[in-house]
Amino acid sequence: MLNITLPDGSQRQLPDGATGYDVAASISEGLARNALAVTVNGDVRDLHRPLPDNAQVAILTWNDTAGKSTYWHSSAHLMAEALEALYPGVKLAIGPAIENGFYYDVDLGEGRSISSEDFPEIEKKMLELAKNKSQYVRKEVSKADAIAYFTEKQDPYKLELLENLEDGNITFYTQGGFTDLCRGPHIPDTGNIKAAKLMNVAGAYWRGDEKNKQLTRLYGITFPKAKDLAEYLERLEEAKRRDHRKLGKELKLFAFSEKVGAGLPLWLPKGTALRERLEQFLRKAQVKAGYSPVVSPHIGAKELYVTSGHYEKYGADSFQPIKTPNPGEEFFLKPMNCPHHCEIYKTEPRSYRDLPVRLAEFGTVYRYEQSGELHGLTRVRGFTQDDAHIFCRPDQVKEEFMKVIDIVLYVLKALDFPDFTAQISLRDPDNKTKYIGSDENWEKAESAIQEAALEKGLNTVTEYGEAAFYGPKLDFMVRDAIGRRWQLGTIQVDYNLPERFDLEYTAADNSKQRPVMIHRAPFGSLERFVAVLIEHCGGNFPLWLTPEQFIVLPISDKYSDYAYQVKAQLEQHDLRGTVDGRDERIGRKIRDAEMGKIPYLLVVGEKEAQDNIISVRKHGEGDLGSMPLEAFVKSVQSQMVDAM
Amino acid sequence: MLNITLPDGSQRQLPDGATGYDVAASISEGLARNALAVTVNGDVRDLHRPLPDNAQVAILTWNDTAGKSTYWHSSAHLMAEALEALYPGVKLAIGPAIENGFYYDVDLGEGRSISSEDFPEIEKKMLELAKNKSQYVRKEVSKADAIAYFTEKQDPYKLELLENLEDGNITFYTQGGFTDLCRGPHIPDTGNIKAAKLMNVAGAYWRGDEKNKQLTRLYGITFPKAKDLAEYLERLEEAKRRDHRKLGKELKLFAFSEKVGAGLPLWLPKGTALRERLEQFLRKAQVKAGYSPVVSPHIGAKELYVTSGHYEKYGADSFQPIKTPNPGEEFFLKPMNCPHHCEIYKTEPRSYRDLPVRLAEFGTVYRYEQSGELHGLTRVRGFTQDDAHIFCRPDQVKEEFMKVIDIVLYVLKALDFPDFTAQISLRDPDNKTKYIGSDENWEKAESAIQEAALEKGLNTVTEYGEAAFYGPKLDFMVRDAIGRRWQLGTIQVDYNLPERFDLEYTAADNSKQRPVMIHRAPFGSLERFVAVLIEHCGGNFPLWLTPEQFIVLPISDKYSDYAYQVKAQLEQHDLRGTVDGRDERIGRKIRDAEMGKIPYLLVVGEKEAQDNIISVRKHGEGDLGSMPLEAFVKSVQSQMVDAM
Repeated sequence: MLNITLPDGSQRQLPDGATGYDVAASISEGLARNALAVTVNGDVRDLHRPLPDNAQVAILTWNDTAGKSTYWHSSAHLMAEALEALYPGVKLAIGPAIENGFYYDVDLGEGRSISSEDFPEIEKKMLELAKNKSQYVRKEVSKADAIAYFTEKQDPYKLELLENLEDGNITFYTQGGFTDLCRGPHIPDTGNIKAAKLMNVAGAYWRGDEKNKQLTRLYGITFPKAKDLAEYLERLEEAKRRDHRKLGKELKLFAFSEKVGAGLPLWLPKGTALRERLEQFLRKAQVKAGYSPVVSPHIGAKELYVTSGHYEKYGADSFQPIKTPNPGEEFFLKPMNCPHHCEIYKTEPRSYRDLPVRLAEFGTVYRYEQSGELHGLTRVRGFTQDDAHIFCRPDQVKEEFMKVIDIVLYVLKALDFPDFTAQISLRDPDNKTKYIGSDENWEKAESAIQEAALEKGLNTVTEYGEAAFYGPKLDFMVRDAIGRRWQLGTIQVDYNLPERFDLEYTAADNSKQRPVMIHRAPFGSLERFVAVLIEHCGGNFPLWLTPEQFIVLPISDKYSDYAYQVKAQLEQHDLRGTVDGRDERIGRKIRDAEMGKIPYLLVVGEKEAQDNIISVRKHGEGDLGSMPLEAFVKSVQSQMVDAM
Repeated sequence: MLNITLPDGSQRQLPDGATGYDVAASISEGLARNALAVTVNGDVRDLHRPLPDNAQVAILTWNDTAGKSTYWHSSAHLMAEALEALYPGVKLAIGPAIENGFYYDVDLGEGRSISSEDFPEIEKKMLELAKNKSQYVRKEVSKADAIAYFTEKQDPYKLELLENLEDGNITFYTQGGFTDLCRGPHIPDTGNIKAAKLMNVAGAYWRGDEKNKQLTRLYGITFPKAKDLAEYLERLEEAKRRDHRKLGKELKLFAFSEKVGAGLPLWLPKGTALRERLEQFLRKAQVKAGYSPVVSPHIGAKELYVTSGHYEKYGADSFQPIKTPNPGEEFFLKPMNCPHHCEIYKTEPRSYRDLPVRLAEFGTVYRYEQSGELHGLTRVRGFTQDDAHIFCRPDQVKEEFMKVIDIVLYVLKALDFPDFTAQISLRDPDNKTKYIGSDENWEKAESAIQEAALEKGLNTVTEYGEAAFYGPKLDFMVRDAIGRRWQLGTIQVDYNLPERFDLEYTAADNSKQRPVMIHRAPFGSLERFVAVLIEHCGGNFPLWLTPEQFIVLPISDKYSDYAYQVKAQLEQHDLRGTVDGRDERIGRKIRDAEMGKIPYLLVVGEKEAQDNIISVRKHGEGDLGSMPLEAFVKSVQSQMVDAM
């Protein structure tokens, strides 16, 4: 009999030779039906391979990332089978799963090409083949046999791949009439693949080397249900509509200029209003929570980074040092604010009674990214962290963590991210030597974080071995309105910098002690956060945050005075907005204001001016009828988070 | 007869051979008595030299900068005469007037030195010689005679100076028994010098070259009245007490760190509170005045500065470019915000109706200064300009200038600088070709500035030829509480950058037109402004601005709860402050709070807690007695400028 352990810790006994499928079936019929693969002691394996004894076993379905990945890898084989049927003689290079779907790099042969017009035919062929429910059959082959097979098939790519493989480690997978050199694992059979879509075709050099031949890369995605595909395509469309680069342009929030440089955003007036309001919102919460804002320069002398340890990590792939007329003098664009804050901590002697010292700065930092990696506001070369560093005693770590968690929760609530998890990253318990700081302090900090997260009722995932070498951390992962996950706020313990900067405080017994440092940034960076926020709310920002809450639209020039009166009165109630005083028809004004995603459109004409009222249209909801100003103010104020 | 014109435009006729003294005497006996020199067609001359015909003549007294400068130059000769008497054989190098007083570089000869202990003897000898009322007698000499004189006197320095002088242009000045090689001019005689003080002694290389011999530089200052000297010394002491570097440290406003780098200030929590409040104050006024805040990065690609023209001015004395892994790619620390703002202007098409566009940014810029030139916050390598750029039509320049003047006046009033003048810098009317921009636009802008200044009732000085090559400007010069003058706010018209960046707007006739750009910064830079403000108010900031308005001082731990109640209640009235909860005696708490220049000290003990009152001490004024909280709040609020 075999002993296996399930993820919940329970144990099962199965006959020798039992497979993952047998384990699934022993749990439930439904699970067996949906099972795609298994993990055996952490490694993904075919569902139908016999299990070893005493293994940790988990059944993978479509709901597991590794399950999806296996499914899409198998789908790449299915697409290859379809291509061989439709493009006889096609040569196959590599075909992995990716985050969403899979691709296969193929050599169609001289004079042949594939365009998006050919996609439906390929998709149709894939589904036709899938209906055969062909099993993915694994076979171990000798290197000689493998070479013989692909020599006969005249596939130079697989032959080149074989060169680097060791005899005894080579496997083929066959489904239907198609055989591929492949390490696996795969799903049981093609029957599960019910929907297929080719997404894109692009050029790709063999082995990523532009000296090699350019192949055709075909991207595809598959699903177990047609409905899933439809939903996926709808989400893609929605993501396109919400793309922060597109909305940022349309709403005039930010821009890039070639002259200023790629990856260096220019914040336009409306984006600046949004950004400054976010800063102000957090600054207020932080000051209330006992933080002290500070300001430090955007460069630092070499000596600062030698001390912090960043200097040795500066390489040819970074912004290079700034030399000066003084030989040997070098400055660096600051990649982080922490070294500067350590120097601020050191400007005066600190006593145990002074701690925690919480230094906060909206500090703009610069890091070089390859231009190909830049992406709107999510990957930039200069960004502003909502940074703070808490210098505290070891016994204060838990309380400080709880307070930081409070701020993060406050931010997520005010900005309407109800769906999030927290990842706790701890030391690798089997390899404690690679971390800096005493065992005692690590244990104190790790349990402080776990207790703090527990007491705050966070939905947590704990990852062992994921801590930085300088300390454990807690990261917040949010799910946005269309289901994508983003890492936002982070809280990290640091034993390294206090050591390197020789930070001290005088303890009650007059001894010199080392403070613990906590790095934290609820937004992460303002740039990335604004990008996520734009895509999360599709440009319809929370009312308290949006740059313009209302726009007054006079029907004609005659009501312009009244329009400005309305604006002035609303401003007295701390609402903000503008008047569209252009000489345009009201229809055009409404359309433009809707395009600008302004929450309230206040139309004023003869009747409104006469009765001292406004006609209110709400963005996305339409006409709310006419009402006195006070009624409008009351209704708007009642909707606002008491955040600003 | 001679015709001369006085500064007020009036004309006088005097006999041939008449001197500046005669002109002064023809105006008033008092002026003749106080006259030190004259300007003739703008050049300073001896008072007793005959005047040419048809000259513009102005009489210089102690109240004129050029009068003081002549006086101090003559005093340098007097000090040299005293040194020759006391240190026979002393060799004299050069002895000019400086901003405050004068110096003389001398070679005392082997084995001799001067220390501050020797100052009184030299001062005494100077005043003794001054009493002789020796005239400063000018004599034109041939080069041969001059060389013969100094060869006999064995003065190698004067002989070296003579090498570079042309025969026919050489003059000697003699007073009493002392003769110097000197171009002059000088005051009539030594009788006017009634007070003398040697200020300092230092080493100085001959001709500033460290390969030359090191001479002794003696600094001195003289005055026409003993009282003036006493006042000057008192002002110096006061300036020392107010030194922003000293107060900045004592009040924990800012600090410098060697590791971060010289000239790169770290703003500590209290300084940051001050700075952010200043920013907020101006931001509010600007938004009200129609400015749009924007945010731009602290670096820009080379291409940006090639376009702006800064690139060609970048030299070996600047921060060097930041290279990247991408060969040929270079970024620069931004020395100004204007190029970035031009690129923001270009992000969308602009119509004549959209103008003016006013882009504002508290933009931190970096400029390399030699470490010897750095000085606290007044000369730094990184500073934040309260910058804005107004893009307007040529016909809007005057109105925009008036609006900017309003903001500057608002700032000067809120920050208590009642004493200021405005300098208007215009083109050199005789050399119009060195300026960029059309004649018509220059005339329009120049008269716009003059009219705006006039209509705003500014006390102005107009300087021809002081305009930048790209446009005329208006600078505000303030006088601080101890009489020193500082240049603060500036407003500049710019025809250059709109041209270089090819900025456009569509005019009413659909033609493309070039906007005018106005640069303006009411504070100039936050760093320099805060330095001036600290020295102006001696660290006693205006109540609305000061980081802590009150501090509650519980007499003992027993009243700590009540102290925090008081604080919380005052905070509800938007007052800010802290509680001194230390376990210290009340005397110590009061002393520390006074040192910290906190405006209001609120002492609470048994009586106060019982009767729900506070005992109020005002910084620098002492006990104001006890009162209910509401009375205190009312009194404080009534004192505050409605600025924040």
